[in-house]
Amino acid sequence: MLLSADHLDLLARLRATRPLVHNLTSATVANFTANALLAVGASPAMVEDPEEAAQFAGIAQAVSVNLGSLTATRRASILAAVGAAQKHGTPWVLDPVGAGGISARTAFAEELLAHHPAAIRGNASEILALAGGTGGGRGVDSSHASDQAIAAAETLARGSAAVVAVTGVVDYVTDGTQTLAVHGGHAMMTQVTGMGCAASAIVAAFVGIESDHLRAVAAALSVVAASGTSAATKSQGPGSFAAAYLDALAG
Amino acid sequence: MLLSADHLDLLARLRATRPLVHNLTSATVANFTANALLAVGASPAMVEDPEEAAQFAGIAQAVSVNLGSLTATRRASILAAVGAAQKHGTPWVLDPVGAGGISARTAFAEELLAHHPAAIRGNASEILALAGGTGGGRGVDSSHASDQAIAAAETLARGSAAVVAVTGVVDYVTDGTQTLAVHGGHAMMTQVTGMGCAASAIVAAFVGIESDHLRAVAAALSVVAASGTSAATKSQGPGSFAAAYLDALAG
Amino acid sequence: MLLSADHLDLLARLRATRPLVHNLTSATVANFTANALLAVGASPAMVEDPEEAAQFAGIAQAVSVNLGSLTATRRASILAAVGAAQKHGTPWVLDPVGAGGISARTAFAEELLAHHPAAIRGNASEILALAGGTGGGRGVDSSHASDQAIAAAETLARGSAAVVAVTGVVDYVTDGTQTLAVHGGHAMMTQVTGMGCAASAIVAAFVGIESDHLRAVAAALSVVAASGTSAATKSQGPGSFAAAYLDALAG
Repeated sequence: MLLSADHLDLLARLRATRPLVHNLTSATVANFTANALLAVGASPAMVEDPEEAAQFAGIAQAVSVNLGSLTATRRASILAAVGAAQKHGTPWVLDPVGAGGISARTAFAEELLAHHPAAIRGNASEILALAGGTGGGRGVDSSHASDQAIAAAETLARGSAAVVAVTGVVDYVTDGTQTLAVHGGHAMMTQVTGMGCAASAIVAAFVGIESDHLRAVAAALSVVAASGTSAATKSQGPGSFAAAYLDALAG
Repeated sequence: MLLSADHLDLLARLRATRPLVHNLTSATVANFTANALLAVGASPAMVEDPEEAAQFAGIAQAVSVNLGSLTATRRASILAAVGAAQKHGTPWVLDPVGAGGISARTAFAEELLAHHPAAIRGNASEILALAGGTGGGRGVDSSHASDQAIAAAETLARGSAAVVAVTGVVDYVTDGTQTLAVHGGHAMMTQVTGMGCAASAIVAAFVGIESDHLRAVAAALSVVAASGTSAATKSQGPGSFAAAYLDALAG
Repeated sequence: MLLSADHLDLLARLRATRPLVHNLTSATVANFTANALLAVGASPAMVEDPEEAAQFAGIAQAVSVNLGSLTATRRASILAAVGAAQKHGTPWVLDPVGAGGISARTAFAEELLAHHPAAIRGNASEILALAGGTGGGRGVDSSHASDQAIAAAETLARGSAAVVAVTGVVDYVTDGTQTLAVHGGHAMMTQVTGMGCAASAIVAAFVGIESDHLRAVAAALSVVAASGTSAATKSQGPGSFAAAYLDALAG
């Protein structure tokens, strides 16, 4: 992987610290997310029950909230977890899957902003929708390129006080003042389900060990991009790519 | 893959169209199903909540309903989704997992027939049970060979006005008048969980882009069979086979 | 795989019998668990609904209960399944994921002991907690080495009349009188989510075909360890390891 000295340094610190990342996510991506966190060097916990969610958010180093396949139960668990995270000062990351495409998801994502996420990672349509624009994703896919959402990401970052990452062919990370671009990755990453969700969990792991959240999010997305680039050279299609990506994250 | 010119043509159309397939399925197979749809060239959405399910069925090109690990919530979501699919004229596919083996699944599958699935895909025991015979699968495995259920599939197709596919060593696809056989596949496909469920979702993707449903279902199962045959030559066991199968679907 | 003649004999019997193993487990590990059971030669059923759980426990050869990502619904399903298992004399296995780390899991695991599991498999922290000590795992990871929990495992085995396995770098299996050590495995096994959960399901499969439960559990963990050792030689990281492990289980 071609990572800057600073990002390699943060990755080494993550592996030494082994942060416990508490995930509230969908059944579709839970396994891949847990394996991605293990591969990168974090310790995943996947909790569904509202009571357990609050208890876990108190002992974790970071919480990762994903709105994929949202249910009434997971909505309650997410609220319990982010409430506990706020109370304990645990940083948490929001992945607003489907915001803009499904009205109830947009509304819930907006409600969650009041609980002060440390970072938000989404595709262009999701970030446009959350920033108050007309995202209009098709299902959970983006209808926009990431650079079309840079201004929206900056607006959202200033309004929410969160670091906002909009990912795509190029990723952009902003705190509303400074905006960084992360290059790399591979088109194959769009052919494996849960790549974005796992990226958000990796963002949470980095935010859990580094209080400069702009730096932490950029490092996380650089590790993701470099692993994707590396995995593409060792795979023959999306099935072998998914395994090679986990291998690369652990490399 | 050795596919007929007609099936290659449909596959090319699927990839150009990229149909959004809305899946109601179990946690066990959700990830593999989503990855299989992405690999073949469709866009998967995995929705669990009844309200979201109705909303999604209205914007999808096809709906795939799977009865594996059925719960009260998923039963409600399935009814909401097939109701919305009927209302919008969206074709939907029924995979009656466990019908014949578990009484509540048989009853629910029969209830769903009233909502006019475009296609039904099951193993021999499931199709025998749905056609009113005594399927009696052992758990979710079939106790019968696929050719023992050809007559039942034809009866079920005439009664339900759906195209019925009974899969096994040889797959049979019928509209009640014409019955086609699909050869190929590999025994390794029975050693990976969710292969049948993913096949049903791929059937839904093809039914979503081609109104001649007999032709669409046969094309889908031919792609599945050819991918299984190809993957078997590149794998050392069920773990590497699953990855090679996704690679082959994308090939 | 380097297995003793006795363990090879039991594995051959398992493959000839193809026991139906009914699993109550989390969404995160359900797919991997089902694939591990298929690979080793058993027939998995993943059931979530309380009514279906009771029905399935009556026809299965063994039941595997896993407390990962516990919810109110799964708690009800587990109680229905172990109740039906007891009634039908079906052996069942308890994997007390998170006992010691999350108070509600410890309490529920203790409640389940009254339903007489045939075997219990956990890491050192979980077994220490269940034996009445102060396990205090960090999330779902163990804070202790397996040999620190040998005495606790023996105490728990005598108190519960179950065979108890505490797994780690070395696995220990005890009925309270006799204690066996199982060597092998590989450090990579801690980098893939659900390896322990799948091991418990494989324990259930062996307990389902062999009434000498000490022998059955030792054979199951030997197959798991040998498969892990073999897979490590054929993989480049945790992603390829997971696939190679399933290949090895089927070998």
